[in-house]
Amino acid sequence: MQGLAASSKLSLTIVVVVFLLGLASAADGRRRLVSSSPDEPCKKMTLYFHDILYDGGNNTANATSAAATNPTALSNSTYLGMLVVFNDPVTERNVLPVGKEVPAARAQGFYFYDKKESFNAWFAFSLVFNSTEHKGTINLMGADLMGEKTRDISVVGGTGDFFMARGIATLRTDALEGLYYFRLQMDIKLYECYV
Amino acid sequence: MQGLAASSKLSLTIVVVVFLLGLASAADGRRRLVSSSPDEPCKKMTLYFHDILYDGGNNTANATSAAATNPTALSNSTYLGMLVVFNDPVTERNVLPVGKEVPAARAQGFYFYDKKESFNAWFAFSLVFNSTEHKGTINLMGADLMGEKTRDISVVGGTGDFFMARGIATLRTDALEGLYYFRLQMDIKLYECYV
Amino acid sequence: MQGLAASSKLSLTIVVVVFLLGLASAADGRRRLVSSSPDEPCKKMTLYFHDILYDGGNNTANATSAAATNPTALSNSTYLGMLVVFNDPVTERNVLPVGKEVPAARAQGFYFYDKKESFNAWFAFSLVFNSTEHKGTINLMGADLMGEKTRDISVVGGTGDFFMARGIATLRTDALEGLYYFRLQMDIKLYECYV
Repeated sequence: MQGLAASSKLSLTIVVVVFLLGLASAADGRRRLVSSSPDEPCKKMTLYFHDILYDGGNNTANATSAAATNPTALSNSTYLGMLVVFNDPVTERNVLPVGKEVPAARAQGFYFYDKKESFNAWFAFSLVFNSTEHKGTINLMGADLMGEKTRDISVVGGTGDFFMARGIATLRTDALEGLYYFRLQMDIKLYECYV
Repeated sequence: MQGLAASSKLSLTIVVVVFLLGLASAADGRRRLVSSSPDEPCKKMTLYFHDILYDGGNNTANATSAAATNPTALSNSTYLGMLVVFNDPVTERNVLPVGKEVPAARAQGFYFYDKKESFNAWFAFSLVFNSTEHKGTINLMGADLMGEKTRDISVVGGTGDFFMARGIATLRTDALEGLYYFRLQMDIKLYECYV
Repeated sequence: MQGLAASSKLSLTIVVVVFLLGLASAADGRRRLVSSSPDEPCKKMTLYFHDILYDGGNNTANATSAAATNPTALSNSTYLGMLVVFNDPVTERNVLPVGKEVPAARAQGFYFYDKKESFNAWFAFSLVFNSTEHKGTINLMGADLMGEKTRDISVVGGTGDFFMARGIATLRTDALEGLYYFRLQMDIKLYECYV
């Protein structure tokens, strides 16, 4: 009991110290680590990732991704071996940008299918922000376990407004229209942020 | 001398504080960073990665990886340019799973050969755990300098039980049977863990 | 005012503690985190990355990279879908190594072009150091926004002398000779270093 009481007091002291140091740092105009609590993200965003795969000729104007390799003979029914590079629009609402609407970000990177028995993918990409709200990039990678309702990939770094960010992005398939369009909901939770 | 004595005392104080905070946090059911000592991993695992490359027709049932691209004319003797995507079994012992034995994890990702003069590869993949022991993923990337007896790649992130993990994986070729089977011993050492 | 004064005093105390702990650690021969200030890199290096792309036959001796895939029909004028694997020399001066001069490092990894409208690339690679000055690797990934004068990618990990490094690399195109040679200036700034 005494240990827990002491711990609470110390914990409070440390929080106060960090808070005061934070204020002091901000007065200097310097960047500081605002949070690294593993329970409470320092930054949360929900974004939608739209992939419009080039179909070989009919959707050239709309397509935002293209297969750089064909599925292999090991299992072409699950597209095993098909690698797609993309520069996909990313939006705040779960609809494609209309007219001259500018997407919240672009997702630039690649995915490929890697499983014989069922659909399963692997992603690495950058979210590129260039808006009044955010400038900078977030870099992500991980397995897209398509058989799971939600699956987590890693935020491994960031630049600009997202300097040195780390965290998790939870993916959920929000729409799937055959091979040529899918939409992922991405819940991005950063646990290391600098401001 | 006085400095070192003071340092030891302060060091002890900090350890006690962290320990007490740790207990307090655990009582809250919250995640906490248990260790970030660069000398002592907070988690160590030795695992074996088995790659059975599709040979074009004879090993369809067993193959767990397939070449999505062919070697280039720059040097096809060292497979330069061959990119392989995989969903490989990962085991605790250095033997392939037998019968209905479930592997400890799957390694999902890709490698490619990148050197003109000799065999040399580059890897990025996720270790996907879904067992009673571990649920979650570890994400890794780095150069597989095949000319070295051991080589280190980076653990750049993790999810689930391996939330926000960072560290090093030391690779050693444990078996190499022509082009179509290799086994890597992976000593995974995490230096940032949350529990 | 009192808060800021208290903060300064506490800040000083913490710096002293960290400094003394650092000395104590060094005396033990143990690794320690020397800096994680987000304003002042703990390590800076400027290096030049030279990519000599295999042209199909005339530069076999000099080429250090090769296209593993062809551009796709979605936009072959911007090489969309061309994926290049490389083992490129990296130098301290902005000239290719001459004669038996050994480059400062090798960059091993891949890039691909991903945009319909203009040139734009995405990179993931390892800088492999094996000199008297440095042994180890630095792992990087991110979008190479070729339309920008400078662009930042993430240092997501490191090994050896660069154990657990994190930071930013700022890229600038230093030379571009058609498709078959480019040189990037890389300003590497690490904000987490262990020594």
